[in-house]
Amino acid sequence: MPETSFFADMLQSITDRGRKLLLAGSRTGEDAAEIDLEALCEMLLSSRGEASGMAIAAEILDRWSALENDDVQQFLHMLYERFGPDTAKLDEAIENYRNDRSSAAIIALHQTAEPRRQELLRRMNLAPNGTAKLVRMRQQLLASKEQSDEFRAVDTDFTHLFGSWFNRGFLTLRPIDWSTPAHILEKIIKYEAVHEIAGWEELRRRLAPADRRCFAFFHPRLADEPLVFVEVALTRSVPNAIKDVLDEGREQINADEATTAVFYSISNCQDGLRGISFGNFLIKQVVEDLRRDLPGLKNFVTLSPVPGFARWLAKARASAAEPPLSDGAHSVLMLLDDPTWAADERRASEVARVLLPLAVRYFLVERTPEGRPLDPVARFHLGNGARLERLNFLGDRSPKAMQQAHGLMVNYLYKLEDIVANHEALAQRSEVAASPAVKSLLSQDGESRRGNGQQNSRPFAQIVSSRIGGRRK
Amino acid sequence: MPETSFFADMLQSITDRGRKLLLAGSRTGEDAAEIDLEALCEMLLSSRGEASGMAIAAEILDRWSALENDDVQQFLHMLYERFGPDTAKLDEAIENYRNDRSSAAIIALHQTAEPRRQELLRRMNLAPNGTAKLVRMRQQLLASKEQSDEFRAVDTDFTHLFGSWFNRGFLTLRPIDWSTPAHILEKIIKYEAVHEIAGWEELRRRLAPADRRCFAFFHPRLADEPLVFVEVALTRSVPNAIKDVLDEGREQINADEATTAVFYSISNCQDGLRGISFGNFLIKQVVEDLRRDLPGLKNFVTLSPVPGFARWLAKARASAAEPPLSDGAHSVLMLLDDPTWAADERRASEVARVLLPLAVRYFLVERTPEGRPLDPVARFHLGNGARLERLNFLGDRSPKAMQQAHGLMVNYLYKLEDIVANHEALAQRSEVAASPAVKSLLSQDGESRRGNGQQNSRPFAQIVSSRIGGRRK
Amino acid sequence: MPETSFFADMLQSITDRGRKLLLAGSRTGEDAAEIDLEALCEMLLSSRGEASGMAIAAEILDRWSALENDDVQQFLHMLYERFGPDTAKLDEAIENYRNDRSSAAIIALHQTAEPRRQELLRRMNLAPNGTAKLVRMRQQLLASKEQSDEFRAVDTDFTHLFGSWFNRGFLTLRPIDWSTPAHILEKIIKYEAVHEIAGWEELRRRLAPADRRCFAFFHPRLADEPLVFVEVALTRSVPNAIKDVLDEGREQINADEATTAVFYSISNCQDGLRGISFGNFLIKQVVEDLRRDLPGLKNFVTLSPVPGFARWLAKARASAAEPPLSDGAHSVLMLLDDPTWAADERRASEVARVLLPLAVRYFLVERTPEGRPLDPVARFHLGNGARLERLNFLGDRSPKAMQQAHGLMVNYLYKLEDIVANHEALAQRSEVAASPAVKSLLSQDGESRRGNGQQNSRPFAQIVSSRIGGRRK
Amino acid sequence: MPETSFFADMLQSITDRGRKLLLAGSRTGEDAAEIDLEALCEMLLSSRGEASGMAIAAEILDRWSALENDDVQQFLHMLYERFGPDTAKLDEAIENYRNDRSSAAIIALHQTAEPRRQELLRRMNLAPNGTAKLVRMRQQLLASKEQSDEFRAVDTDFTHLFGSWFNRGFLTLRPIDWSTPAHILEKIIKYEAVHEIAGWEELRRRLAPADRRCFAFFHPRLADEPLVFVEVALTRSVPNAIKDVLDEGREQINADEATTAVFYSISNCQDGLRGISFGNFLIKQVVEDLRRDLPGLKNFVTLSPVPGFARWLAKARASAAEPPLSDGAHSVLMLLDDPTWAADERRASEVARVLLPLAVRYFLVERTPEGRPLDPVARFHLGNGARLERLNFLGDRSPKAMQQAHGLMVNYLYKLEDIVANHEALAQRSEVAASPAVKSLLSQDGESRRGNGQQNSRPFAQIVSSRIGGRRK
Repeated sequence: MPETSFFADMLQSITDRGRKLLLAGSRTGEDAAEIDLEALCEMLLSSRGEASGMAIAAEILDRWSALENDDVQQFLHMLYERFGPDTAKLDEAIENYRNDRSSAAIIALHQTAEPRRQELLRRMNLAPNGTAKLVRMRQQLLASKEQSDEFRAVDTDFTHLFGSWFNRGFLTLRPIDWSTPAHILEKIIKYEAVHEIAGWEELRRRLAPADRRCFAFFHPRLADEPLVFVEVALTRSVPNAIKDVLDEGREQINADEATTAVFYSISNCQDGLRGISFGNFLIKQVVEDLRRDLPGLKNFVTLSPVPGFARWLAKARASAAEPPLSDGAHSVLMLLDDPTWAADERRASEVARVLLPLAVRYFLVERTPEGRPLDPVARFHLGNGARLERLNFLGDRSPKAMQQAHGLMVNYLYKLEDIVANHEALAQRSEVAASPAVKSLLSQDGESRRGNGQQNSRPFAQIVSSRIGGRRK
Repeated sequence: MPETSFFADMLQSITDRGRKLLLAGSRTGEDAAEIDLEALCEMLLSSRGEASGMAIAAEILDRWSALENDDVQQFLHMLYERFGPDTAKLDEAIENYRNDRSSAAIIALHQTAEPRRQELLRRMNLAPNGTAKLVRMRQQLLASKEQSDEFRAVDTDFTHLFGSWFNRGFLTLRPIDWSTPAHILEKIIKYEAVHEIAGWEELRRRLAPADRRCFAFFHPRLADEPLVFVEVALTRSVPNAIKDVLDEGREQINADEATTAVFYSISNCQDGLRGISFGNFLIKQVVEDLRRDLPGLKNFVTLSPVPGFARWLAKARASAAEPPLSDGAHSVLMLLDDPTWAADERRASEVARVLLPLAVRYFLVERTPEGRPLDPVARFHLGNGARLERLNFLGDRSPKAMQQAHGLMVNYLYKLEDIVANHEALAQRSEVAASPAVKSLLSQDGESRRGNGQQNSRPFAQIVSSRIGGRRK
Repeated sequence: MPETSFFADMLQSITDRGRKLLLAGSRTGEDAAEIDLEALCEMLLSSRGEASGMAIAAEILDRWSALENDDVQQFLHMLYERFGPDTAKLDEAIENYRNDRSSAAIIALHQTAEPRRQELLRRMNLAPNGTAKLVRMRQQLLASKEQSDEFRAVDTDFTHLFGSWFNRGFLTLRPIDWSTPAHILEKIIKYEAVHEIAGWEELRRRLAPADRRCFAFFHPRLADEPLVFVEVALTRSVPNAIKDVLDEGREQINADEATTAVFYSISNCQDGLRGISFGNFLIKQVVEDLRRDLPGLKNFVTLSPVPGFARWLAKARASAAEPPLSDGAHSVLMLLDDPTWAADERRASEVARVLLPLAVRYFLVERTPEGRPLDPVARFHLGNGARLERLNFLGDRSPKAMQQAHGLMVNYLYKLEDIVANHEALAQRSEVAASPAVKSLLSQDGESRRGNGQQNSRPFAQIVSSRIGGRRK
Repeated sequence: MPETSFFADMLQSITDRGRKLLLAGSRTGEDAAEIDLEALCEMLLSSRGEASGMAIAAEILDRWSALENDDVQQFLHMLYERFGPDTAKLDEAIENYRNDRSSAAIIALHQTAEPRRQELLRRMNLAPNGTAKLVRMRQQLLASKEQSDEFRAVDTDFTHLFGSWFNRGFLTLRPIDWSTPAHILEKIIKYEAVHEIAGWEELRRRLAPADRRCFAFFHPRLADEPLVFVEVALTRSVPNAIKDVLDEGREQINADEATTAVFYSISNCQDGLRGISFGNFLIKQVVEDLRRDLPGLKNFVTLSPVPGFARWLAKARASAAEPPLSDGAHSVLMLLDDPTWAADERRASEVARVLLPLAVRYFLVERTPEGRPLDPVARFHLGNGARLERLNFLGDRSPKAMQQAHGLMVNYLYKLEDIVANHEALAQRSEVAASPAVKSLLSQDGESRRGNGQQNSRPFAQIVSSRIGGRRK
């Protein structure tokens, strides 16, 4: 950090002066530490030299780093309370605008309505490692967001600034492989959020083989911190179970033999950047890069979890309301209540017949109040313009997946020429793009609601990929 | 450009759809090309998918690139006219706020007051090379700024966004030397704005010797485009003439013999980033880096032009007003009107006696209406916290320097422990930091105004560095 | 590997032709595979085009890679038997030289006396990864060296060529740290030969802290294969036990607080390069680099094992010959036969009194027939010009160290100004450089041989660093 | 140079000791400097520590660098005179071998026959920049090689060592383009040996356009010094004149539109490496790399000068011997004696008719005593396995080319599948590979010798590419 000694030297004079200012204005009985931070923030806002500004910013962030518990809350509260817009000036600007309505008046109005903390955060960002620290600050904020409405106002400012600082133009895509520096790899282990990486040996299995790829987005100000990464398996067919992808003993192939790139794990790394979306860019960029390097690749699919399915199904089972599950469906689904159901081929087969059409309903029919798919992962991929390609019954038998989705996984298909149309259909008309095979299950859903699933004549194997008894059917 | 083919493919579908939209809404008689661009901008603002957004943005910037003359003006005018804030909504938000005064209402007010072109520019920025193109767009804007007030509104938005995108945290400092790639070096030749570089051989002389350094700021989105660079000479004394620095035949020294780093040329490279200041950071960072690498360096000074001096002096001579030049001064300065004056030692000596105290006045006494120094280079360095160290009479005899400053150059001194105090003194009290030697000339200025410069008993050589007859005195 | 497809294409025509040649000359009943390899080697020697040469070389090395057990031996035997010098030509060259004695005749003689396998190996080296494969080939050779004298002739040629290819000028020193690519780090784990690294977490503890360093030599043709590496601890004093260095809970310091660099582990990585020495260069280069980066470093020492000590001591105890251990010494050393001795402070203390003077004798007095120190690690460091600085009693209580050296460790000191003199003293006069403290123990050794160790009045603590009962004394 | 201070320190003690040695053995009246160097060389050979060895080597090379004129010769003479093999020991080793004939005796014989300067040079190579300095030392040697037979013995040792140190495995291919560091580019300007580069602007035209490539081999010990480089033009047809390739105004194409890669200039950079061949590897590697990056490339050809043609033709014209030029040919070739011939379309056309068949004879029929092609450039490309594809009459009208080859250029074709066969045909049977069109001219050669060239009915345009009157025909 070349800036350090410069700041060290400069800080002395700054804080000497700062302290004098503070002493001059201090009122007895108040908590010294808090006054200091607020006063420093005011100093930062009023500083006119960049160097002194950077020094004050560094000081603020240093002190903030040392805060604990209630003091953190107090700091965030201070951002809200003391660094909103100056309402007196705002009223004046409004008055002015109503008389004038010139573009200059609007500019003034706009600038006056901006909370002062926006500029404050911009200036803090100039401190060494400022961006990383502000990302942590927002992480604290998000942790307490639920508690209080006032934090929402503060978060609006963070979101606005982060959206600008982390815009896609600044992100660089880097391949992650077994020749990546260890201090970055250990973060991949730490941040993997979908299928846990147990240690360095497993990491090696995910990165080193010729038929594996991994890519991450990085940001110049968060140097060696990945923002989001995706793990890819190169295969000769679309996998229907995560086990096949992660299996130690699987047969490896050469990259140029692969026809299919499977995105089997996408993890956001920075809690403090929640809602600042880069995953969609990541996937599209990776598709692009893989296509160029490996012209043999024809299919780009995911193998994805369905994290909201079990919750939704439980609600559906509990609800008496429309659309009612048929009695037959109800009773079949009671099999789920015995955790051993999946190990028993016969029971699993019965569950599959009822559960899969319901899953299609979950994806294709149900919507949030805003008209979006219920499942968060579905929202992400369908929102990117992918289509729902296949349901994989018992695609993941891990406890987490059994609990979240009764083992269900799905493949989303990224087909370049359809991405725009799919995206628009969802955005404009709330229509979910799905393969014919998936759609055909919808009628069965109707049937299962009517209780006559049995008479369905098409075997599942054709329309969904299922793994009953742990074997491919 | 990995994104290209992706965009090429995607664009087809976008613009097909776009064209359909436009045809549906087109009114006869209007110019098709203009409609298109505005309609595309509206499409971009209403697009919800990032991919389609990037494609539209790319299309807009492509078309904009092809615009000429009036169409450029029309495009900028459109940004003003059609993409300001929605005043209806703004009025509503104001109404709302007056009833409510909640933080949510303020946020809404702030967001509604934001000109729509801010979001438009943000989205254009996502196109391939978007940032570089927007920098050029602002360059066009600045070129026409004088013509019309409305452009000021537009520029406010550019300035706001560029301030965020080009904040110091994103800039990386890179040394420029003789091992730098040629395609960057040719830009150094092109952008050098203070002391022209005649070609590759001269560039080599400025970069390759052991006692020369050069540093530039780069930005990740403008990859190989320097934003600003500074050329440094490592010396054993503070030079008083640019000739000594640039002389081909000068004696070279080893870097570790140097006691003094002389910043003798600072050039901004991107017209479109005018007013987005990085030069100050550049100098401070370079001081820091040099100090670390070469502990023998004790002095950090500039050898700077005084571009506004001749103009000011001409005005002073023409003006009858206060503070009046003494008659003696007046008549001495008439020597300047014969361009051969500097070649004649006697005349030069007379000029020096009168001109130098006036120069001190120019720096230390005169101010802009906002209380800042008159000279733009002085504003920069003094604003950074440097102090005016020495005047160098006839420090630069090039035609340009003779015309702008009657050959005057100055040294500004960067002294770490004084930077904050100097900066604050200027910012708070409009006081210019200057060496005692420089200040002592002020009294002579008074005298020269009173017409008795002759009786000054201290020789110039002690207080200023002068080069009369081209030789060091 | 860009060369691959080129070779693939070329090889077809080569081996087609080769096969034709072979068929033409094949005699029935012989083993086809062996003929092939020898014939290919002859082809390689007679090939005149580099391209075809590279293809044949690649083919030879591919086939050799697939050899097992006896076939490996047979291949090495073939190198000896068929690719020695052409003795007929050699006799002729000798005859020629005796008549002529011109420099041309000597050149011819020299070239004829060169075994043909030298040129063969040189040409094999041009194949893709040729060098790495030849290093493995020599590893095979060394593994069987004991078995047969003939292999020595072959090894002379390997040694000669490797000495040239791996000369110090080609080696590059690279720091190894926690930002080193994982595929190199896993080799550090694998190759560590002195103090085993248990896994990635322990590796991290050895590389990541601010007071740890590691450096390795690499060779351009063995890209990511370290040849030799050294682990360094930065400390504030010379450690006397490996536990202090490796302890997880030790207090970490900043690098610039350190006064002492401790080389605590040096590992050669490539068995096939045994006897091609780079370790000495490594240490000197690392000393140089550390001195430059951390001017606070004053002492450069090792903390080294004494792998040959226990074996020598056992022999000394068993031998009746001169110089006889005194009876007192004999009986004290019998304490060593009970493995619990070191845990008992009193017994350990008795052992120390007798064992340490004997250790000094081992280092300072005993010699190999060639006049070199007995201990291999001592030969290395003393041969480099270091001096024996201190004995550390029970410096390493690991089973390996207890077994090899009764827990003894030593510090060798690298003092720049003495390196040449120390080295010369050893090389010319077989004198071992040692600190006065170490030397002073020699007299006690005499005493212990005379059985009157008791009356030694100087406490050990002053002259050796001992760790009795696991605590510093 | 991290090693410097280390050496500086060490050297003091070395040379102090060296001086003492020398003083002890010095004989009066001898030249001190020369004694020193020889004595230092003896010290280097007898040194046993690498560090002291490196210091002595550095000292030797420093002193050698300062030698001038006669002293250089004396130094080289000393290498011959004093550092050949020890003939007494050699005689002994011969005696030994004749008694024993064991492999150990051969090894000893081989080692004794090796001139001592080989080991001396090996040890000098360890000095900082040792390799670069030895390359310069051989350059000196080559410059004086003609003068004396004894230097040949010395050069044998240089050649042997350089062949090992510069073997292809150590060379790295790097693209040279407009983003290459300037300090390397200035060497490209300097070393270009075929078509001079007039300055940076012309260099830019050769490197920056999308349809230009350049590649160089580098060696790790000669860091930023190219060894050999090739310039490539990407085109849509095989060019028949250098003007088309270098023309400023030529139409540029995109790299992926190109079908043909034209190697139009290959330059060796290091005189001291003469005869250590890498050009062939360079071309083959570049073909390989270009094929991979630009799958559209189908033809790999050169556009080459014919530097030996005019000399050969002059001899043929002067000679009365067989095969005699016909009288008709003789009289036509007299046109060449008027330098304006090429500007006159009619005369040029007559010359072409006679000169081209003779050129084919020059390439296809004539041979050196060793059975190789006469032309040095032809030897290189044909030896690499290329074939002679086309003759380009007046392909280069520059004075140099007119003087060396009457303006003739040729294309050699590199066709992967024929390279081995072509190479073998030349190596085994002295057969030059040529296109049918070129071969068909041979009969005309016979005719021109018989004086009836006129009756040839096939127009040249079909078989050779000619440029009469400067326009393409």
